[in-house]
Amino acid sequence: MSYKESLKALTESVGGGLAAVVMGYDGIAIEEFLLEKTPFDLQLLTVEYSNLLRDIRKTVEILENGGMKEVSIATDRLRVLVRVINSEFFLVLVIAADGNYGKGRYLLAQEALKFRDELS
Amino acid sequence: MSYKESLKALTESVGGGLAAVVMGYDGIAIEEFLLEKTPFDLQLLTVEYSNLLRDIRKTVEILENGGMKEVSIATDRLRVLVRVINSEFFLVLVIAADGNYGKGRYLLAQEALKFRDELS
Repeated sequence: MSYKESLKALTESVGGGLAAVVMGYDGIAIEEFLLEKTPFDLQLLTVEYSNLLRDIRKTVEILENGGMKEVSIATDRLRVLVRVINSEFFLVLVIAADGNYGKGRYLLAQEALKFRDELS
Repeated sequence: MSYKESLKALTESVGGGLAAVVMGYDGIAIEEFLLEKTPFDLQLLTVEYSNLLRDIRKTVEILENGGMKEVSIATDRLRVLVRVINSEFFLVLVIAADGNYGKGRYLLAQEALKFRDELS
């Protein structure tokens, strides 16, 4: 499966899945998949989250409680789930606020492991 | 129940619960409860997370996908769960990495609603 196909399968397997992106901390998306008619700007989200993830990683490093592994940020409308792939890349899954969060976390963790093998 | 008692009950009801804090975005903790012999510096965590939550709130505002509601950041050792109380305060629950995340999220959401009534 190509990266794009993996991201499509991930998005479509999770109830309420809207988009998935593999990206670097530098803000550059390696590959992405977005359902049609999603109600948000994925480009903007990608750039903003790479900045934010760098801030979160810095905080986690200061606190010295182990390396960053998973981040989840929910608003009234969306939930952005992030799983660290390695020191350069992370995997993002965007689901609707009422989407299947548990399944999303589970599949995202599995997928991140596969990407770790591919991107190392 | 006093704030301290509520935080103690919350921490002890969640498998793997270690600490709970009500705090302001200004970095000042209103009240906190910490199990003895927890392996981290709660003061430092509190200050760093208030900075981080301000950054996350800013990002969420830029993306215009609704107000910030819940944040979860996991490392190899700890999971920090945050639930927004109102525009000034948020509630933090720290659990062990293998703690009961689902129950933690559920009880934290309930508790945040109670605090919203008290702190409004």
